[in-house]
Amino acid sequence: MTTALPTFEDVASAAARIAGRAHRTPVLRSRLIDEQLGLKVLFKCENLQRMGAFKFRGAYNALSRFTPAQRRAGVVAYSSGNHAQAVALCARILDVPATIVMPRDAPAVKVAATLGYGGQVVTYDRYGEDREAIGQALVERYGLTLVPPYDHPHIVAGQGTAAMELFEDTAEEGGLDALFVPLGGGGLLSGTALAAGALAPDCRLFGVEPEAGNDAQRSLREGRIVHIDTPQTIADGAQVTHIGELNFRILRAAAPEVVTASDAGLVDAMRLFATYMKLVVEPTGCLGLAALRTHAEALHGRRVGVLVSGGNIDPARFAELLANTGSTAG
Amino acid sequence: MTTALPTFEDVASAAARIAGRAHRTPVLRSRLIDEQLGLKVLFKCENLQRMGAFKFRGAYNALSRFTPAQRRAGVVAYSSGNHAQAVALCARILDVPATIVMPRDAPAVKVAATLGYGGQVVTYDRYGEDREAIGQALVERYGLTLVPPYDHPHIVAGQGTAAMELFEDTAEEGGLDALFVPLGGGGLLSGTALAAGALAPDCRLFGVEPEAGNDAQRSLREGRIVHIDTPQTIADGAQVTHIGELNFRILRAAAPEVVTASDAGLVDAMRLFATYMKLVVEPTGCLGLAALRTHAEALHGRRVGVLVSGGNIDPARFAELLANTGSTAG
Repeated sequence: MTTALPTFEDVASAAARIAGRAHRTPVLRSRLIDEQLGLKVLFKCENLQRMGAFKFRGAYNALSRFTPAQRRAGVVAYSSGNHAQAVALCARILDVPATIVMPRDAPAVKVAATLGYGGQVVTYDRYGEDREAIGQALVERYGLTLVPPYDHPHIVAGQGTAAMELFEDTAEEGGLDALFVPLGGGGLLSGTALAAGALAPDCRLFGVEPEAGNDAQRSLREGRIVHIDTPQTIADGAQVTHIGELNFRILRAAAPEVVTASDAGLVDAMRLFATYMKLVVEPTGCLGLAALRTHAEALHGRRVGVLVSGGNIDPARFAELLANTGSTAG
Repeated sequence: MTTALPTFEDVASAAARIAGRAHRTPVLRSRLIDEQLGLKVLFKCENLQRMGAFKFRGAYNALSRFTPAQRRAGVVAYSSGNHAQAVALCARILDVPATIVMPRDAPAVKVAATLGYGGQVVTYDRYGEDREAIGQALVERYGLTLVPPYDHPHIVAGQGTAAMELFEDTAEEGGLDALFVPLGGGGLLSGTALAAGALAPDCRLFGVEPEAGNDAQRSLREGRIVHIDTPQTIADGAQVTHIGELNFRILRAAAPEVVTASDAGLVDAMRLFATYMKLVVEPTGCLGLAALRTHAEALHGRRVGVLVSGGNIDPARFAELLANTGSTAG
């Protein structure tokens, strides 16, 4: 059975559904970064989204489409990152019981945040147990509905609302010539592709993967979903072994360019965000700016969007990365 | 000779003058901070202002009121901080030659930023030379116009535009019951008092000084400007020995409450900003939130504004302060 691909209409209806629940995050600029790069950058700041990442959009869209029976039975999600927190928070808002399956060694701060949002946490041994099997067992035993992090039409449609807002908010002053978007499982990029197709068909779309794991780049090149080992990168939000099936089909049709960014480039971008824009951005959220910095010459004088996907990083870890003297941000 | 006190009309005309030049900075919220404090906080984020601080507002207002002759001759300012950078940047925008008098041992990053904005830097020995005398000599020799950091009606009027925007942007949803504002020389607080007097006369106004230097608190209590030694505090933007004369007169009439915040409280607030709001805020910019945290009980259930004055802190220093395990932010 093949799921029907979501369309721009689904993104637009997701936008109506999340209105007043998600923040319409600001589009911020830095003249100093513009001068350094020789172009105009418009940053869509999803690090300022509720719970600190765009994931709120997809989770809220998905949960608000539950039937009354699904709402009563509850939702299950597995993730050690932003998706889990997003599902827990949206479930609380919509009064749906939430169960989050997390590895036993997940950072205490993330477990605490998920519990704080009212989610019930079930832990598993990430070396001996299979989280999908645990999730599936909960689905079967208790009739819970599984909300996956990216491979789902309602998630994709919700994530697309970030770019939709960015296109709307920049249309008056000339739109965008290009847009850089972090790429992990492909939820954000495929939703962005749906929005771009309808609102900005001439905008060049760049997906940005960590250099350590360019599986999506290879997948689009080879025309099949390439699986890799878990990549070693500080961009933990893009630390996936393969992109989603639905996401692959959307991206194959949209044909974005896929580029990569190194961990050193992410730290430099993080320092630029802190220094020039006073923003805390998590490593995955730095993918767009890091890649743009290496492609700036080809885009000279253009108007370029950068989707800043999230800002959830432990302050001590943030301090540690900032303190490292990297190739540095001049 | 006594300078006439600026009024709300001056703030309103400053707002018209800076429109399209200064950012109308966003008013951001954090539900987690609201829950922790038991009230609604509306953060006016001047750390997202051009050059990273509210100082742009006053400097732009002051320089844009120069006569043609003043513009040709140029401006001089002395400061090692945000005011110098603001004057240098505004001078570049308005095509006015700028000379900035800075201590020889000023942080290289600040000297570089000031030069980067096109200002000419004159250094002095802060232990052997008097910067006011150097500034005065430049005024006399070259006919430059001195723009002081706070004790000037055009500066005060410009700084008042930040609170004016905050009152405007929160009016529809119920206004503000209280507003916390960092207090150093008194430029921001006196401008805020002018805006509050006209737009929100029932809003309780709190000025927040570093605990190490409560000269303004004492000055308002004693009815005269109290001079102190340079206070030892991480809030370098509020490290002044006395408030300005004009500022004192405005504040005496407005009678704000003046409270203090400890350095430990500033670091805790800085960590809250980074963790929950993904914002880099310099220590001085944390004064408002730090003080609000110790006065939250008395304001239970209220709508409280916090003016976040700036975000200019060296990333390494920011990392160092964040990494320190303080009493911490729960």
